[in-house]
Amino acid sequence: MKADLITIGDEILIGQIVDTNSAWLAKSLHDIGIRVNQIKSISDEASDIIDALDSSKAEIIIITGGLGPTNDDITKQTLSRYFDSELVFNEAVFKHIGQLLVGRGIELNALNRSQAMLPKDAKVLFNRTGTAAGMWFNSNDRQVISLPGVPFEMKGIVEEHVLPELLNQNGGHVVVSKTVLTTGLPESMLAVKIADWENNLPNHLKLAYLPKPGIVRLRLTAEGANRTEIEESIQKELEKLQQILTKEIFGFDEETLEQVVGRLLLEKKCTLSTAESCTGGQIAALITSVAGSSAYFKGSVVAYHNQIKSDILHVNDSNITKYGAVSQQVVEEMAMGAIELLKTDYAISVSGIAGPSGGTQEKPVGTTWIAVSDGKNTISQQFTFGEHRGRNITRASLMALNMLRLLIINKI
Amino acid sequence: MKADLITIGDEILIGQIVDTNSAWLAKSLHDIGIRVNQIKSISDEASDIIDALDSSKAEIIIITGGLGPTNDDITKQTLSRYFDSELVFNEAVFKHIGQLLVGRGIELNALNRSQAMLPKDAKVLFNRTGTAAGMWFNSNDRQVISLPGVPFEMKGIVEEHVLPELLNQNGGHVVVSKTVLTTGLPESMLAVKIADWENNLPNHLKLAYLPKPGIVRLRLTAEGANRTEIEESIQKELEKLQQILTKEIFGFDEETLEQVVGRLLLEKKCTLSTAESCTGGQIAALITSVAGSSAYFKGSVVAYHNQIKSDILHVNDSNITKYGAVSQQVVEEMAMGAIELLKTDYAISVSGIAGPSGGTQEKPVGTTWIAVSDGKNTISQQFTFGEHRGRNITRASLMALNMLRLLIINKI
Repeated sequence: MKADLITIGDEILIGQIVDTNSAWLAKSLHDIGIRVNQIKSISDEASDIIDALDSSKAEIIIITGGLGPTNDDITKQTLSRYFDSELVFNEAVFKHIGQLLVGRGIELNALNRSQAMLPKDAKVLFNRTGTAAGMWFNSNDRQVISLPGVPFEMKGIVEEHVLPELLNQNGGHVVVSKTVLTTGLPESMLAVKIADWENNLPNHLKLAYLPKPGIVRLRLTAEGANRTEIEESIQKELEKLQQILTKEIFGFDEETLEQVVGRLLLEKKCTLSTAESCTGGQIAALITSVAGSSAYFKGSVVAYHNQIKSDILHVNDSNITKYGAVSQQVVEEMAMGAIELLKTDYAISVSGIAGPSGGTQEKPVGTTWIAVSDGKNTISQQFTFGEHRGRNITRASLMALNMLRLLIINKI
Repeated sequence: MKADLITIGDEILIGQIVDTNSAWLAKSLHDIGIRVNQIKSISDEASDIIDALDSSKAEIIIITGGLGPTNDDITKQTLSRYFDSELVFNEAVFKHIGQLLVGRGIELNALNRSQAMLPKDAKVLFNRTGTAAGMWFNSNDRQVISLPGVPFEMKGIVEEHVLPELLNQNGGHVVVSKTVLTTGLPESMLAVKIADWENNLPNHLKLAYLPKPGIVRLRLTAEGANRTEIEESIQKELEKLQQILTKEIFGFDEETLEQVVGRLLLEKKCTLSTAESCTGGQIAALITSVAGSSAYFKGSVVAYHNQIKSDILHVNDSNITKYGAVSQQVVEEMAMGAIELLKTDYAISVSGIAGPSGGTQEKPVGTTWIAVSDGKNTISQQFTFGEHRGRNITRASLMALNMLRLLIINKI
């Protein structure tokens, strides 16, 4: 089965919001063997919605957006006209909207009541977390599913109603992907290093390189009728790849470096703290974004001001004066200071010039020192990132987590 | 002028990555008065690329992706065939690729050399930050621009080559949008509160509601030939709206709460610190994502473990035992602790149960206490967010920044 995704909303076409719904939907459909042909974003205009429906060649069309209570939302009206299905009052949906709003201390108004008017020929998809119900139209040889644009409402409806039904309809055909996450080598060097392996891949396996700053992902894909067979053939190739990229592979699929580091710390029953200057708490935030991180993460000192580096982390004042806050001496003392103050087994520390200002000829914007320590060994490294503040913070956080990973597995 | 955006890459259709390039491009084009009709994501297949080109009705087509050095990238080959323009070796591009890779300590290989082969009829768009050059084809009544998919490379080329040329071509016609950022009222209550204002808007102004968790954005749009006139008519309506939403409006357009709070602190020449438990450094990371934040942000103690709350922030141990770490007493002492330890004028503190585990009947997952303090007044509030860890952290961070904003402007 093939699907098209259509996102409705001027806010996407003028670049006000990024369409994250489509990526989530595409992934969910891919996992149950439904191929997405096309993702399209169009405006809140009835004629554009109708054009998109007319031109789609897919058996399943999933539309998100335009179901809100306000006047600029026209998806429901347009679909009910397109499928010639009049709007009727839905008592259950109205009751649910009432309960939802009362729970939030909001009074029911006419706009909310209009959300309980639904096309009589569509299957209503109950929305537990919001007021806009989903709709499922069946016409001739295709199905059109309309969902609210608020991400968590859309996801709730898809998980509860849409995926189980589509999985049922699709019976059998599967697509399997496995993604290998690497760091430490840029795309072209990685390609050379694994060229022999790549050239010897069986024909039914497709390889894609997916680079992003600091990380290159390698995706292997195959499809067919037998999931186990496909998975085994992918697994066989992965094992060969792991022999080649012993240091570079840090995880698979949706794993993040912060999850991998968390898993390693749990396995070793060790604790971690961070002492951050230019990353401003970002590394701690990444680590604590992982559920269960309180088992190994004790805390952080964000020492943005130098006074905090010396007063709280006990960095030697004279080293700050002599070498500067962005220096090997200071970053190593920050790591040791975190271990002593927060009483942890490991610590990460970072001090750099994130920019856009603060750079000098000797230490331009992007200059960053990172240290990792287990109390006995402190390993530090200087990086020269770029001129972009946000990207510098992201890369520094990534490199710091990777240095900790290599320290824990004794490969640094 | 109208444009279509086409993103190429299977990784988008299987949901492995979110297409952020299109949003950025759409915004950049919108700002120079070029309307985006459609955003489309298609696969790395020559036939799909050709179909997309054939079916587009726009005068400008911007394609991103598929220009990498590896075998799965086929955009350049496909376009050179489509426009019947053979690939020729470009000395300047080759030299640039060489310099770029040497600077990164990478050896030049055959894959890199192939990136210097470019269609002879396309204008070459030099890529300062990467190895894949952009291409600009002019054919009959339309223009096709092909760009690399790596976001910062794409942006560099667009800013340097594409926008200036398109701005020049479009001479005159403008679209103006202004977005009002509000927090504190859900969409339907906000709609009722501003109903009179909305109903009395002049016809040429279009209003859209754009909700996301904790924030509702209101976007006013108009287009025409005279930018000043349009801007003045929008401004007039905004002033009326500000009389109605005195507390709720926190900013405009792309502003973030962390930028607004930063601006207020700069104006008052005051400093800030944070003491974070469940937000794990996220608030500090948001604050320091703003360039220049070192002028008012001194640092943070991420007290994930209770021992750090008492040892470092001097929260009374007996209060943690008596009331629990997620309590008014503890969160207020955390704020005071941060002010004393980090010597700042203001502090934010948060303690909550982010989930998915750790909830009790009395304090379910999502229960969060937030305090803001100026040293004299400490104001705290309990929130009950939901069950989703990431969303709880996001909402807590947002609410904390908003409480600080209201404290600084004396509206809490």
